[in-house]
Amino acid sequence: MTQTRIGLAGLAVMGQNLALNIAEKGFPISVYNRTTSKVDETVERAKNEGNLPLFGFHDPQSFVNSIQKPRVIIMLVKAGAPVDQTIATLSVYMEKGDCIIDGGNEWYENTERREKAMAELGLLYLGMGVSGGEEGARYGPSMMPGGSFEAYKYIEDILLKVAAQVPDSGPCVTYIGKGGSGNFVKMVHNGIEYGDMQLIAEAYDVLKSVGKLSNDELRQVFTEWNKGELLSFLIEITADIFGIKDDKGDGYLVDKVLDKTGMKGTGKWTVQQAADLSIAAPTIAASLDSRFLSGLKEERVQAAKVFKSGGLSDILSSEPVDKAKLIEDVRQALYASKICSYAQGMNLIRAKSVEQGWDLKLGELARIWKGGCIIRAIFLDRIKQAYDRNPDLANLLVDPEFAKEILERQSAWRRVICLAINSGICTPGMSASLAYFDTYRRERVSANLVQAQRDYFGAHTYERIDVPGSFHTEWFKLAKQSNI
Amino acid sequence: MTQTRIGLAGLAVMGQNLALNIAEKGFPISVYNRTTSKVDETVERAKNEGNLPLFGFHDPQSFVNSIQKPRVIIMLVKAGAPVDQTIATLSVYMEKGDCIIDGGNEWYENTERREKAMAELGLLYLGMGVSGGEEGARYGPSMMPGGSFEAYKYIEDILLKVAAQVPDSGPCVTYIGKGGSGNFVKMVHNGIEYGDMQLIAEAYDVLKSVGKLSNDELRQVFTEWNKGELLSFLIEITADIFGIKDDKGDGYLVDKVLDKTGMKGTGKWTVQQAADLSIAAPTIAASLDSRFLSGLKEERVQAAKVFKSGGLSDILSSEPVDKAKLIEDVRQALYASKICSYAQGMNLIRAKSVEQGWDLKLGELARIWKGGCIIRAIFLDRIKQAYDRNPDLANLLVDPEFAKEILERQSAWRRVICLAINSGICTPGMSASLAYFDTYRRERVSANLVQAQRDYFGAHTYERIDVPGSFHTEWFKLAKQSNI
Repeated sequence: MTQTRIGLAGLAVMGQNLALNIAEKGFPISVYNRTTSKVDETVERAKNEGNLPLFGFHDPQSFVNSIQKPRVIIMLVKAGAPVDQTIATLSVYMEKGDCIIDGGNEWYENTERREKAMAELGLLYLGMGVSGGEEGARYGPSMMPGGSFEAYKYIEDILLKVAAQVPDSGPCVTYIGKGGSGNFVKMVHNGIEYGDMQLIAEAYDVLKSVGKLSNDELRQVFTEWNKGELLSFLIEITADIFGIKDDKGDGYLVDKVLDKTGMKGTGKWTVQQAADLSIAAPTIAASLDSRFLSGLKEERVQAAKVFKSGGLSDILSSEPVDKAKLIEDVRQALYASKICSYAQGMNLIRAKSVEQGWDLKLGELARIWKGGCIIRAIFLDRIKQAYDRNPDLANLLVDPEFAKEILERQSAWRRVICLAINSGICTPGMSASLAYFDTYRRERVSANLVQAQRDYFGAHTYERIDVPGSFHTEWFKLAKQSNI
Repeated sequence: MTQTRIGLAGLAVMGQNLALNIAEKGFPISVYNRTTSKVDETVERAKNEGNLPLFGFHDPQSFVNSIQKPRVIIMLVKAGAPVDQTIATLSVYMEKGDCIIDGGNEWYENTERREKAMAELGLLYLGMGVSGGEEGARYGPSMMPGGSFEAYKYIEDILLKVAAQVPDSGPCVTYIGKGGSGNFVKMVHNGIEYGDMQLIAEAYDVLKSVGKLSNDELRQVFTEWNKGELLSFLIEITADIFGIKDDKGDGYLVDKVLDKTGMKGTGKWTVQQAADLSIAAPTIAASLDSRFLSGLKEERVQAAKVFKSGGLSDILSSEPVDKAKLIEDVRQALYASKICSYAQGMNLIRAKSVEQGWDLKLGELARIWKGGCIIRAIFLDRIKQAYDRNPDLANLLVDPEFAKEILERQSAWRRVICLAINSGICTPGMSASLAYFDTYRRERVSANLVQAQRDYFGAHTYERIDVPGSFHTEWFKLAKQSNI
């Protein structure tokens, strides 16, 4: 047997699909999995899906030996300890100049730790975020490789063909940067994904709970929205979801799904990193908090009883609304909120890039998110253009095009949030986005009072608007004097 | 010379004041500082403030030797490396059974690490949060000691006398729990303090920017508020602040303070811990984000120009409002928002207590915050009562008394936020609080859609409202079928 070009270890569905994708693009691939039935399963699929050049191995040594040197092996195993175990299993058979690529959602510092440990063995290492779910892995994901540039160059030809292809802007992959930058960028991508999903859920909530739209109407609305500026994978699948009938009873499946949302950690990390880097990311944080609160189903049922009997609903507005106007307002509110959410995510990436010296290119990131990944959308091309116009743009909000779009939508945006508030429907993501906008665009905010308070009780000092320097005032003493 | 009862190392203002407080309560105290001039300064102050039994030392050995065994030394130095340095300096002269207490805002895991290291030397260790600023330290702080119970018992008599004394509920100190629990509780206290300050700043913003109240009127409003349910240290000092004239020019000082807020880390940690523990803390997070955005003064000035020329203000409401009604609405909105903020903080503490097995008593924490600390308020007695009624209360919001108060205030609360939104005044803290309430009290939220989306693109599965179990649906396939 001639040697294969690349190897892949970890054959859950994502791993299987990515291996098949690589083989289909003409790169002979070796695959390995600890549970060997998965190997056979993948080999069988390769045969059935077009006799693809994929070769299965039941032991790590022959797997490694089957790959041409310098060897490249992509791991798709669970983040954390399983990654370390897989590295330990494989690296003993690998040689100087070989490379391991972690394709999972790993914490970026783990990747940097491993890159250093591998370097001591003469091995190269890449942390590569892969987005697109199972479908994306099979037919074209968005990939965010970071770490050894040498290793990236060696497999660039593979990645360029395997990635999602977007007309006019190319394959959805680029060398992200050094160290754990690929994992970090993927983490923020997921945080943005949380934000998008939350904003869509709020739009749904307002349309359903206030506008009284049926699932059928919702499907039509989202299908329509998917033809315009909101065109995106998440809007598309949302339209699909509203059309699925329950297979276990009457009505639609979405109404039978329990209102409890799971999560896997990247949203949490995004919020924690934003706090670490002094970046406001309230829309992403609101989406995380909504998932936390959704999990308290039993508490919510109890609380609903407490407040229902207290007469809460008597106060809430339930006036009929103009459906067509509401739909259009919600569309605009969703779009404006989305701009704020992406502004937060992009600024988080920039702050980390500065801290770590990664020199990340925000416009290029927007480009590789245009296809393949969960947040793929026509909207990302607008973001790319904004950074093309001005790579040093302080915030997406002040890009002339986005600023104009926000201004055009702000009335609708404010109307939707107030309508939701008065109806007792919470829109934490949209509210957080608007507050972000209204804070960021204000020359003078009320932080002067907070700083005065801090100086009053903690002598933390303050600056002045008119004179440079740092000042402290004996507020307490002066107040007592003036009260005499 | 007879030996002193206790020692204190680290004589910045907080340290000096706490040492004088201890001496004044009749406990002879030894003091030490690396920069010896601070020692002399403190000795001088002890003489001037009533010939207090305070003894200064210029070298660590004689300082340690001057204290009766088992020795107890409180450190008040900057968190992090300075604490380790001080421990290293002092511990060489200490003996088995002696105790070191860290009175700073230390990260709780550092305290646990040090407690273990000290135990190997036979030394006891406490991490004790101290709140109340300089005034509190001198005349009665709120103290949150955690760690060695044996060490706590040995100095309990001192702490009980040194702490702030609240009629009917005693001294503002209690043994918090094991390990780093004292630091953790102090950290959340500070997070709640961030929330309080942000909510007050928003009330100020609405009253000033929408209600057009003068500083004089604001002072009267806050003075009035301080007579009712909002009675608290922070409302009191806010009233004071509005009365202080600028000493460098015309007008009031608060208007000359730059709108940029500093911070020292405990608010950030609170938000990160909340994310770690799956606790929604959106009000506290909003206060942190507001501080971050306040720091971007130059960007805000630029953004204001972009949007002003875009005609943003044409859309914003500037209708005259009924001042008296607005003031009363804002008061109610502030109070309702505050309940939500404290609910978040208390639930964060409980989640950590469960995780760590600390067995913290939430009602007892509310009790020791009634006096001495920055968040001291009549409101904390209501929280204490709520936990007295039901120590296992799932959330402060569903305590019958608080539930009733929220219901009475919810109309005003919703009015204020909508007014702010339509005036372009952001109230992120109040909005986040209301969204928290409106999510927590809803039996059915829109998380079913999010979970359906996750199952669609990632096969993450979902639960159903009617049948137990975990389900996965081939949404994509079904959608394509139904579209044919």
